[in-house]
Amino acid sequence: MLEKTLRVSALYDFYQTLLTPKQQQYMTLYYLNDFSLGEIAEEFEVSRQAVYDNLKRAVVMLESFESKLGLLSKYQTRLKLFSELRSCLLDKDSSRLENIDHIMDKLENLD
Amino acid sequence: MLEKTLRVSALYDFYQTLLTPKQQQYMTLYYLNDFSLGEIAEEFEVSRQAVYDNLKRAVVMLESFESKLGLLSKYQTRLKLFSELRSCLLDKDSSRLENIDHIMDKLENLD
Repeated sequence: MLEKTLRVSALYDFYQTLLTPKQQQYMTLYYLNDFSLGEIAEEFEVSRQAVYDNLKRAVVMLESFESKLGLLSKYQTRLKLFSELRSCLLDKDSSRLENIDHIMDKLENLD
Repeated sequence: MLEKTLRVSALYDFYQTLLTPKQQQYMTLYYLNDFSLGEIAEEFEVSRQAVYDNLKRAVVMLESFESKLGLLSKYQTRLKLFSELRSCLLDKDSSRLENIDHIMDKLENLD
């Protein structure tokens, strides 16, 4: 459950601007401010079911954006490459420059 | 005109998966395969005006995605930083490592 919440929060970071303003409000309250469905329903004077359906649709949309654009996945790949690059930069080994070049190539080919 | 076409093509690279299949077909033929509006209209048995409207809407959507996600702009920033990084890596100056660190920080803070 925690893993799923973390993934949704990460996807939300990347794609929130593509959701409707209402979805953004519900998502922020539920995933970032830890409101319950009931509390959001009360706040917006709608049914708990309406909030649930809206959030569920939003999560489906976030996953759909990720399957189309892959921003989270590319971001994670880049972070991994940056970390490898940092290690290489500290490495005194003779193959260092070759490794750096290899990583830079990978980074530059990632859009 | 060429500049605008290059921008649309670049935006299309990043956001084509968010367009409808029809928009993707028209955009590919018009911007990548150099078909005329008339040729596309004939191919799909629709009016020239319909093709024009569809393409125009697609370009508006691409610009709207860019204003929301900024993928092209971030990509350009990254390429610039990669190029600076490559220069630093070749630089024998004593401030080299400091510069590299600075660029890496900038890269890692870009999503």
